[in-house]
Amino acid sequence: MLEKLNDYWKACCYLAAGMIYLWDNPLLKEPLKPEHIKERLLGHWGASPGLSFVYVHGNRVINKYDLNCIFIAGPGHGAPGVIAPAYLEGTISELYSQFSQDEEGMKNLFKAFSFPGGLGSHCTPELPGSIQEGGELGYSLAHAFGAVFDHKDLIAITVVGDGEAETGPLATCWHSNKFLNPVRDGAVLPVLLLNGYKINNPTILSRIENEELISLFKGYGYEPYIVEGEESLEVHEKMASAMDSAVEKIISIWEEARSKNKPFRPYWPMIILRTPKGWTAPRKVGNHYVEGYWRAHQVPFSDAKENPKSLEVLEAWLRSYEPQKLFTPEGKLREDLRDLAPKGEKRMSATHYANGGLLRRELKLPDLKSFAVSVKTPIQDEAENTRPLGLFLKEIIRLNPDNFRVFGPDETKSNRLDAVFEFGKAWMAKVLPEDEDEGYLSPFGRTMEMLSEHTLEGWLEGYLLTGRHGFLNTYEGFAPIISSMVNQFGKWLDISSDIPWRAPISSLNLLLTSVVWRQDHNGFTHQDPGFITSIVDKWPNVVRVYFPPDANTLLCTAWHCFQTTNRINIIVIDKQKHPQYLSIEDAFKHAMKGIGIWDFASNHPEHEPDVVIASCGDIPTKEAIYAVRMLKKLFPELKIRFVNVLNLFTLTPNTEHPDGLSDREFDSYFTKDKPVIFNFHGYPWLIHRLTYRRNNHKNIHVRGYRENRKIGIDAGYLAPFLKGRGGITTPLQLAILNQIDRFSIAMDVIERVEALQDEGGYYKDLLKNKQIEALEYAYNHGVDKEFDETEL
Amino acid sequence: MLEKLNDYWKACCYLAAGMIYLWDNPLLKEPLKPEHIKERLLGHWGASPGLSFVYVHGNRVINKYDLNCIFIAGPGHGAPGVIAPAYLEGTISELYSQFSQDEEGMKNLFKAFSFPGGLGSHCTPELPGSIQEGGELGYSLAHAFGAVFDHKDLIAITVVGDGEAETGPLATCWHSNKFLNPVRDGAVLPVLLLNGYKINNPTILSRIENEELISLFKGYGYEPYIVEGEESLEVHEKMASAMDSAVEKIISIWEEARSKNKPFRPYWPMIILRTPKGWTAPRKVGNHYVEGYWRAHQVPFSDAKENPKSLEVLEAWLRSYEPQKLFTPEGKLREDLRDLAPKGEKRMSATHYANGGLLRRELKLPDLKSFAVSVKTPIQDEAENTRPLGLFLKEIIRLNPDNFRVFGPDETKSNRLDAVFEFGKAWMAKVLPEDEDEGYLSPFGRTMEMLSEHTLEGWLEGYLLTGRHGFLNTYEGFAPIISSMVNQFGKWLDISSDIPWRAPISSLNLLLTSVVWRQDHNGFTHQDPGFITSIVDKWPNVVRVYFPPDANTLLCTAWHCFQTTNRINIIVIDKQKHPQYLSIEDAFKHAMKGIGIWDFASNHPEHEPDVVIASCGDIPTKEAIYAVRMLKKLFPELKIRFVNVLNLFTLTPNTEHPDGLSDREFDSYFTKDKPVIFNFHGYPWLIHRLTYRRNNHKNIHVRGYRENRKIGIDAGYLAPFLKGRGGITTPLQLAILNQIDRFSIAMDVIERVEALQDEGGYYKDLLKNKQIEALEYAYNHGVDKEFDETEL
Repeated sequence: MLEKLNDYWKACCYLAAGMIYLWDNPLLKEPLKPEHIKERLLGHWGASPGLSFVYVHGNRVINKYDLNCIFIAGPGHGAPGVIAPAYLEGTISELYSQFSQDEEGMKNLFKAFSFPGGLGSHCTPELPGSIQEGGELGYSLAHAFGAVFDHKDLIAITVVGDGEAETGPLATCWHSNKFLNPVRDGAVLPVLLLNGYKINNPTILSRIENEELISLFKGYGYEPYIVEGEESLEVHEKMASAMDSAVEKIISIWEEARSKNKPFRPYWPMIILRTPKGWTAPRKVGNHYVEGYWRAHQVPFSDAKENPKSLEVLEAWLRSYEPQKLFTPEGKLREDLRDLAPKGEKRMSATHYANGGLLRRELKLPDLKSFAVSVKTPIQDEAENTRPLGLFLKEIIRLNPDNFRVFGPDETKSNRLDAVFEFGKAWMAKVLPEDEDEGYLSPFGRTMEMLSEHTLEGWLEGYLLTGRHGFLNTYEGFAPIISSMVNQFGKWLDISSDIPWRAPISSLNLLLTSVVWRQDHNGFTHQDPGFITSIVDKWPNVVRVYFPPDANTLLCTAWHCFQTTNRINIIVIDKQKHPQYLSIEDAFKHAMKGIGIWDFASNHPEHEPDVVIASCGDIPTKEAIYAVRMLKKLFPELKIRFVNVLNLFTLTPNTEHPDGLSDREFDSYFTKDKPVIFNFHGYPWLIHRLTYRRNNHKNIHVRGYRENRKIGIDAGYLAPFLKGRGGITTPLQLAILNQIDRFSIAMDVIERVEALQDEGGYYKDLLKNKQIEALEYAYNHGVDKEFDETEL
Repeated sequence: MLEKLNDYWKACCYLAAGMIYLWDNPLLKEPLKPEHIKERLLGHWGASPGLSFVYVHGNRVINKYDLNCIFIAGPGHGAPGVIAPAYLEGTISELYSQFSQDEEGMKNLFKAFSFPGGLGSHCTPELPGSIQEGGELGYSLAHAFGAVFDHKDLIAITVVGDGEAETGPLATCWHSNKFLNPVRDGAVLPVLLLNGYKINNPTILSRIENEELISLFKGYGYEPYIVEGEESLEVHEKMASAMDSAVEKIISIWEEARSKNKPFRPYWPMIILRTPKGWTAPRKVGNHYVEGYWRAHQVPFSDAKENPKSLEVLEAWLRSYEPQKLFTPEGKLREDLRDLAPKGEKRMSATHYANGGLLRRELKLPDLKSFAVSVKTPIQDEAENTRPLGLFLKEIIRLNPDNFRVFGPDETKSNRLDAVFEFGKAWMAKVLPEDEDEGYLSPFGRTMEMLSEHTLEGWLEGYLLTGRHGFLNTYEGFAPIISSMVNQFGKWLDISSDIPWRAPISSLNLLLTSVVWRQDHNGFTHQDPGFITSIVDKWPNVVRVYFPPDANTLLCTAWHCFQTTNRINIIVIDKQKHPQYLSIEDAFKHAMKGIGIWDFASNHPEHEPDVVIASCGDIPTKEAIYAVRMLKKLFPELKIRFVNVLNLFTLTPNTEHPDGLSDREFDSYFTKDKPVIFNFHGYPWLIHRLTYRRNNHKNIHVRGYRENRKIGIDAGYLAPFLKGRGGITTPLQLAILNQIDRFSIAMDVIERVEALQDEGGYYKDLLKNKQIEALEYAYNHGVDKEFDETEL
């Protein structure tokens, strides 16, 4: 049996090497010649044999124990080692007819690997069975845990590379076992592939004492099984035994917990597999070590086409796998070997768990209306913007008890979403009596909180990729921590959307709250609206950015987001008490349209405007509305149009983003020639970047958060008040320092509207004095005394 | 002695509580009244007592063993616990006269804390002794290790919060001990402050078994000393003993290693301090737990001004510290207590190590010329752009053997900088014979490689903040991993630059290479020029972005960057073989100016141009130059001006960035009305964002990397060639798919220049056919066949 397994593995290794080197002669029916070698050699050999090794042992236990498994390849650069078994078990041929199970198909596979228009050299979305590409390292374990939450019969066999293991996200993610409930969740079986080298360096974990290594993983809460060696049959035997023990341990944990419905946190099994880097490649080529050294990381040697000696080495190496014994003359895997692979959807390359859209059930959503804030007097009525969303989320949890979770880095309560705690916070570590106080901890909790944005983002991605729904809330200022992860996930979604056999998955919904404008004592470190800027440059078919101005529009936006697929929906709104504007009915229309003229906030809306005041974001909207009210009082005849932008991408030309307005529509809001004062939540340049092609762009004056207010051209009379420069502020102070406040906007309007030029100076001074008064009051009292038009 | 220490600590706790609550009556000379309470209560109590506790024990060992220490507060939100001892030992009063050592000064301190224009509620740059703010969590250990590298007499007493400990960056950073050489480096003494709670949740490390906890830290390579308890005198005793043991262990490690000049990796000591959250606050207020619970995290209870009962609780709490016994009636700390603090620069709040600019020596730089690439025939001569920089860096290491290091996540060789390996790679873990092969590992190595961008960035920051120089190289596509860290560091630099007593530190120099345009087989995951976009919105006095077009300009740019202070210098350039343009003399002028007209790449440069072709970035420059050559051949009369932009911020108006050109200067390069084809390295919108205010903006047509090429309006005839959409490509293919290639630019010029309209159609077709030919060749062969003007 193990001999056969070894042959199956040799077939994988042969294919992996073939993908890297061979242009022709795929079965080595003739002696190897230079013209059989690819013109350009690309790909990573180093981790490939190890990945295939784990894969074939996964196959063995799937058959033996009738398991449902997915395979997650941390070292995604070793894709040949994953493509090979996925091809051998037939899935690739079923989805891509050119890669058939014969000589021609094998030749095509070799040729297409890492070739323009062909198969990627990581575990890309095109590779069936993959839910993690592994291009940017560090997220395999998080994806694995996300995949098995609420999938009680699933085991994620997860190869963690020892390079990847050095990254921060991976290093903390081992602690995910403090959130895994064996009653309702599946299991992750991590295999730490200790092959010793990265691109050009040894790995840390391969160069510490075994004692330290074991201690580390015990400390992480695992029971490590060590498998090490170089002689393949011997290592097969050890690995089979370790895999059996690990799987039996998992099954017994499940049984124990489930039979009594008593969740507990065991030492979960894990495997440390210490084998040579580039295992089975030649040990030395020329004077350089290859197998077992970092030189085996990518293409072990590159001159086989030009150097006859290297060609010889390559041929000997390839023939060492004895392809003629593994494959039929037609190029099909030997029949007795084919029997080793699981069948149908049990194949890890064909499991629906790795094509989660197939498992996805639509999220059941409660009626929005019951969560609506009643808005009797717009502007005057106030509410905490995010609190109704918390109630909405709570009901979603109730209606979807097994396929929806809320994620947050210890901020869910701070973000006013704590209604979701009715269903507990997931927690498998020790519990103390005081934990009952509020937001109780429970193995069955539906909210996941850990102080690692990376882990949460990774869990959520894994959860979505395997067919479920989720919602992540975080402080806006710390969203940049995961900007690279969100980028990578966006790339995955973008490509996936084009792959016919990949069913769409639920969107990634990300709430950014505790926003830049309300960091009253957290200071500069918490002021950063840059995440939005970094995401708008990305894939128009994937990214959406919403700035609901109040509680009801937030509800409607979230309701919409939950029904979309294959998107990244970013929602930005503050958590604190703010004015409310729209009834739930109006909010719904506004949210669906994404942009609107607000008559109630305009002046003489029946006329063509003298000036357009636009806002995007809840706090800038509030200040802009107060500016209009002051202007109304000072200049009752002034015709002001108030425009609110909720869906940021409406600003983009429709040729560039599906949500973009046509130029004609855009003009119907912003006119072709009137001054527009645009009060924005984030960096002001972003609005220019989105609108620079619009007819009226030269008249659009944007205000927003500026890091350079110190040397800003506009500091002027505010300069003496830049004490502390806005590190600690009251809300109005921070608005004034960035000139998004009501006074600044009103003054700006006076300056921009020609008809007001004559009398403007007097009123500008009036406003300036009020503004300085507000700043000074805040500096003296530490709180705001709010000013509005009644004081003018 | 411990009683006195306890009194000193009580004084700290009293001050910390005072900062959070008191507006007046700082010494509680009268009964506490509502008007003595601040109108708005802000600040974090939770970690404050623990931080002060560690601080005063740090003081004790500094005196006892005559140590040099810095104090790094991971939980920076507990700033009151750090401000308090810094005030008590006099440093704050020396730097800020309003916070004098008397009742008035104490009152001012209380009032100013977390108050507009006052002292921040984290360990901000304004706080003497701080080198880490702790707003964004996770970087304390990395800063600590960075601080002690090459500071052989320094101990960084580093409080790691148990919340922070859950972050990825912190979790992997424990492994930094694999890079710490006791012969030449100082030591980090981590104190894991296990107070059990975050904002709203217990912490993971506080809720696992002690056995797991100890095992974890042994696995990380430490010897943990556990100190736990609630009764303060008892805990003082345990802590004093643990600190003594830890310090003696460190000293003995140093002595052993140094006496024989034999570096080894010991189990370094660390302390696990398990005390209640918000220690010494009331245990219960109303029905809620406070001390020892998450409710103590921020302001323990907030209604003291309104609720007489709470006022009573607060008064009792504050009086429990017995301020009248700790302070003289004038408000000065009791004299015998003052003796407990170290003196002068031994004070952790006054040490020069935490004001690194004071220790900074200018970097010795070798003569640039000896590294120059000889450029005999511009364009035709080729070189690997980064390799000469590697040689330059190697010489810098030689000239600055103890205060300069190179950092990279396992990519220094891949990035062609491996000349620096002449001085070895730092490595304290096991070494094997094959490690000698190339780039040898050594405890004394000057290049630091670990596969954690977070750790490297944190090390480098710590190294710079304590007065040294450094250089970080990384793949452009993965720079976003640290974009939030770079942001946070930028904020620190921005604020620091305004603090008169903070001496300027060396700039953070960051090379982004292996750029988006050369990810031939790494695919989409490695294609991301977004880091640049995220950084340009930040502080103009801090951020610089350079795109040297060739090897010599790179050398000159780096040479310049090394001489700047308090900046973040981003340099973007590819590592592979590319055309060379400028001799070292011309390169120097070009780099210093940041922008230039290249006559050698223009056509009829003596005339006003018909069209301006501009480039920014090495690969877009190459393609743009080839476009000019083709246009010259097709339209010999066409007047083309070639502009190269090296310093990105020259494009910004000089009112917004110190490196910006005035409008008049800008026009002198880009004209007021001629078409400009701008070939850019990154997302094209960035150029619009920088230039939208310029006179000729409407004529600037930017080409760059686009994520949306699938639905891009310009796909047109390229659509059939979007096979694989550019995941795996040849270099020219990727250029063509994004239309930054020579053919696209030439066609664009034909389209934009009115004079060419008549005959243009024919030539456009010619170019289009050449372009399609190039694409097809690449699809068939996997390599490029380069086309140039000679084929036309």
